[in-house]
Amino acid sequence: MTRDPFDWIDARAEARRRAGLVRTLRPRPAESELLDLASNDYLGLARHPEVTDAAARAAVRWGAGSTGSRLVTGTTELHAELEAELAAFCGFEAALVFATGYAANLAAVTALTPPGSLIVSDAANHASLIDGCRLARAETVVVPHREPEGFRKALDGYAGCALAITDSVFSVDGDAAPLPQLAAVCAESGAALLVDDAHGLGVLGDGGRGTVAAAGLSGAPGVVCTVTLSKSLGSQGGAVLGPARVIEHLVNSARTFIFDTGLAPAAAAGALAALRLLRGEPGRAARARAVAREVHRRLTSAGLDSAAPDACVLSVRAPGPDAAVRWAADCRSAGVAVGCFRPPSVPDGISRLRLSARADMTVSDISKACEVIIRTAPDGSR
Amino acid sequence: MTRDPFDWIDARAEARRRAGLVRTLRPRPAESELLDLASNDYLGLARHPEVTDAAARAAVRWGAGSTGSRLVTGTTELHAELEAELAAFCGFEAALVFATGYAANLAAVTALTPPGSLIVSDAANHASLIDGCRLARAETVVVPHREPEGFRKALDGYAGCALAITDSVFSVDGDAAPLPQLAAVCAESGAALLVDDAHGLGVLGDGGRGTVAAAGLSGAPGVVCTVTLSKSLGSQGGAVLGPARVIEHLVNSARTFIFDTGLAPAAAAGALAALRLLRGEPGRAARARAVAREVHRRLTSAGLDSAAPDACVLSVRAPGPDAAVRWAADCRSAGVAVGCFRPPSVPDGISRLRLSARADMTVSDISKACEVIIRTAPDGSR
Repeated sequence: MTRDPFDWIDARAEARRRAGLVRTLRPRPAESELLDLASNDYLGLARHPEVTDAAARAAVRWGAGSTGSRLVTGTTELHAELEAELAAFCGFEAALVFATGYAANLAAVTALTPPGSLIVSDAANHASLIDGCRLARAETVVVPHREPEGFRKALDGYAGCALAITDSVFSVDGDAAPLPQLAAVCAESGAALLVDDAHGLGVLGDGGRGTVAAAGLSGAPGVVCTVTLSKSLGSQGGAVLGPARVIEHLVNSARTFIFDTGLAPAAAAGALAALRLLRGEPGRAARARAVAREVHRRLTSAGLDSAAPDACVLSVRAPGPDAAVRWAADCRSAGVAVGCFRPPSVPDGISRLRLSARADMTVSDISKACEVIIRTAPDGSR
Repeated sequence: MTRDPFDWIDARAEARRRAGLVRTLRPRPAESELLDLASNDYLGLARHPEVTDAAARAAVRWGAGSTGSRLVTGTTELHAELEAELAAFCGFEAALVFATGYAANLAAVTALTPPGSLIVSDAANHASLIDGCRLARAETVVVPHREPEGFRKALDGYAGCALAITDSVFSVDGDAAPLPQLAAVCAESGAALLVDDAHGLGVLGDGGRGTVAAAGLSGAPGVVCTVTLSKSLGSQGGAVLGPARVIEHLVNSARTFIFDTGLAPAAAAGALAALRLLRGEPGRAARARAVAREVHRRLTSAGLDSAAPDACVLSVRAPGPDAAVRWAADCRSAGVAVGCFRPPSVPDGISRLRLSARADMTVSDISKACEVIIRTAPDGSR
């Protein structure tokens, strides 16, 4: 037979073209004149010399890769050091580092929901949490975004193991979850609470200790937190933070931990150096938040539609996907890199510019970025 | 209420202890006297100076992290270069790099099975492929290990999109899939074929071009291959190789691509340097295979139970999980690091030592390793 088994893909590609939703990769050079409001490098540490030197030295000292699963040869003393310092910084008993934040979330959701569990998940949770729910042997109830009452209703009267799951800072609009209320709901119903603090670590809480610390929930017996090492910490990877018995359980049962190669030593060392910088310069977190608030103030003063940021992530609504793409391209032409989120990355179907504030942006950076975004705004965005 | 939502974990821990299945992390130092037969560093490139220097230079030049999703700021020119060279080396039209091999497999399985698809999956496939099947909106039929006839029966008469999935070299016993026969079955039924060549790249095929190239299937229209950058290439990450339209489809729809931070520049550069070394020194692959065959010959000559290796992975059966743990510990005490696979990492429930051969092992390394493994073998292993 001569049928090509991938012929169906062409129709998908054509549909994307018609809908203006084609994504293409744009390889970037090492040095760029663009002002970066697109990355997740909230503290500007990805290229900090202490961070890059630590990564470089680790590659030479430990090798380019970890060479195996964390359970075999993939755990170096560097991984153990990073785990101990991460846990201590964020106020948890223990931490476990994964090769990606995605893997950390898949691990936490699947390993903490024994068969027959109930999962209650915020409707705007990150894709990796959603995939974790799909992989879990549990029933998942999706509840309205940021509504503790929805969690309460879903958990009410459930006697088995239950896990409530929420992003701390939601990745599209940068709005924060009502953690104290969610924790109270969980405590009442005996449910565990899993918080993905990917966008909170390094930005929120005292000195950047994260959203869970800010809510006074670090180290609480029923609370588990996931973080990434690839945003504020400027490196790669993710981690799960929680009670020691939870971490031991993950070591023994989380498939993305057991069956994946350990994080590369350079990434572990880079994250560790960034964590130490943050600990030594706690003002970085507050500075990043202040930049975000100032960008938001200027954009909304000019009539753009943007929700007040709870951390460093802002989004600005565009009239449609084509307009969003053109807007982002116009910003880029004027020297400002911004993110452009379109379906299916935005579950509500509303296309946006996605901006991130950085602690190391100067006043003139902020002025330039806002001037460009406002000047290039398409009709219908005000 | 005072109920601790993680109390159920203690019973799991106790059950593991009773069954002798507790796993603990053993952080390793940078320098070790141990002879390594435990890692997946088949070509001995993880610590090759050209590889580690490339990784170190990339960390300094590009930063410790890629700073965002591949679709936003996470694609550097380094990623594009690696993708082009990987695709050319393995004989595919295009390649797409992921932060882990696990993510590459999740992406390939889920993005290549539109709703209503049929997946036919070898019973011994890697955990990441199994998780991909669980995440896919498709029906999965698991067929007996390495039996083309099972694939044929499952695909027979199916008119929709179908994807047959197999490891090329299975990670526990190191046995190879019957790729030519599987490809023939797929061609007859119009199914696509996805091959996970994690343990074949760098080891099998002309100059290490992999199992798919060895079978003459590279670049075939219905064939997609996944590889890791963390085994033969000594770094971190994974990639999907296939027709350009498949790769474009993944860029636009694979969740672990869109919603995960791009691979760190140091890891991309390390893998690229390793690939270039392999291209320049094609004898490495054959040498690695020869070491594996020699280790197998010696162990089986001494009466140990080990299947003939098709690549660099060997396993030796142990009488039980406790005996396997003690055996591995005795090897370690005698200076030889070996892997120890126990349930649930071994679906058939048989505990094993898991050995990997390396291209850079000397004759005296081979002698020492085999002498120690044979001398420490527990009663019942012969």
